[in-house]
Amino acid sequence: MTDRKVGTYKFVAEPFHCDFSGKLTLGMLGNHLLNCAGFHATDRGFGMATLNENHYTWVLSRLAIELEDLPVQYEDFSIQTWVEAVYRLFTDRNFSILDKEGRVIGYARSVWAMISIESRKPADLLNLHGGSIMDYVCDKECPIDKPGRIKVTEKTPWAEYRTKYSDIDINGHVNSIKYIEHILDLFPLDSFRGRRVRRFEMAYVAESYYGDVLSFFCQETEPGTYDIEVKKNGTDVVVRSKVIFI
Amino acid sequence: MTDRKVGTYKFVAEPFHCDFSGKLTLGMLGNHLLNCAGFHATDRGFGMATLNENHYTWVLSRLAIELEDLPVQYEDFSIQTWVEAVYRLFTDRNFSILDKEGRVIGYARSVWAMISIESRKPADLLNLHGGSIMDYVCDKECPIDKPGRIKVTEKTPWAEYRTKYSDIDINGHVNSIKYIEHILDLFPLDSFRGRRVRRFEMAYVAESYYGDVLSFFCQETEPGTYDIEVKKNGTDVVVRSKVIFI
Repeated sequence: MTDRKVGTYKFVAEPFHCDFSGKLTLGMLGNHLLNCAGFHATDRGFGMATLNENHYTWVLSRLAIELEDLPVQYEDFSIQTWVEAVYRLFTDRNFSILDKEGRVIGYARSVWAMISIESRKPADLLNLHGGSIMDYVCDKECPIDKPGRIKVTEKTPWAEYRTKYSDIDINGHVNSIKYIEHILDLFPLDSFRGRRVRRFEMAYVAESYYGDVLSFFCQETEPGTYDIEVKKNGTDVVVRSKVIFI
Repeated sequence: MTDRKVGTYKFVAEPFHCDFSGKLTLGMLGNHLLNCAGFHATDRGFGMATLNENHYTWVLSRLAIELEDLPVQYEDFSIQTWVEAVYRLFTDRNFSILDKEGRVIGYARSVWAMISIESRKPADLLNLHGGSIMDYVCDKECPIDKPGRIKVTEKTPWAEYRTKYSDIDINGHVNSIKYIEHILDLFPLDSFRGRRVRRFEMAYVAESYYGDVLSFFCQETEPGTYDIEVKKNGTDVVVRSKVIFI
């Protein structure tokens, strides 16, 4: 029963996916989490491919990751994912990250909406495939806080970046993982020495496109905690993020 | 016998590893090629882990990739790799890229040296593990040109880039794949519309480090063919590259 609800996927920390400390990057972990979401949904009949035929697609709205550790290069690890709740317009999908011995080293929470590809309007999840997604709701624990509200008042950007070829995905948007990389790249390498990211949150607010100039507004709300807002072309908020070092 | 010499590894084109056209990026293909090199060598007793114990490491010197096609997102593909030749200071490792039906859609050639981690001096491959690497030399065909000489005279850089946290690998160097991404990012998105990269070459000349400013000197030697030289901090050549669009 749990097997049917919880998907488990095995990975190895590839060397080019690890940072200078030899540990898997958060961007690559995020990539694996989103892939697992895709595998899990596809195997149960509500994945991207099925939805696209019906002219719908999943859109990631929030992601929060909290970590005690990360695999080092060449190390095996696995990710479990399950659906925590389904609302009319959103669904909560959770994750646990397990080290090579199967010990939990982190958790993640994500919030997704489903939209119509034509109208970009949200779809009713409770009616998706006759409400079959509800059959997979699972009460496995995920003992980390839900994504919170992020508010940035800083008016001077820390950095600006014009989006490039490698940022853009098949939908013509900057891909969700690239934002994570660009946000972590705001911090000097020394920020990651002797400390690590304990919690990382992303709120995906709007899309950005090829050639957009992204401005990164950042404030340290308490020591080691950073709230970040990314705007495109000086005006619209694209993503907000919180990075907590320990 | 061929199985022992040729390693075959299966992959799927992950959505965040595909570009705006929906096809696997060259950077991610390069990542997979280098991983396959690692798997193949490790399984045969001359991989990084074994060598590190002996204080040696493999260093990628050249990479050339030639493609007729690339997998689209969610598509299965596989990579084969084998050792073509072993010289005293270098070894030639080749690759073929197969689509989901097992049809060859591309080939790649790479040249590697082995160096001592302490002295950074090259090691004698013919004496590596009593010359056992020679047992795996294989005459499987690889019908693409060897990496050629790349000469750039252009004096004005197309772009400059200061290396960031996400560029740096466990050795403290900008990782081999990031150069591929930065080089392709020199080209506007429209360069990849209606044409694609047919051949891509990289020559890894020297290491660059965190905070180095990379300058990209680029010249179009004939229509759609670009020779690129990357220098760090205005002086030393780090990599050279050739990109041929079709």
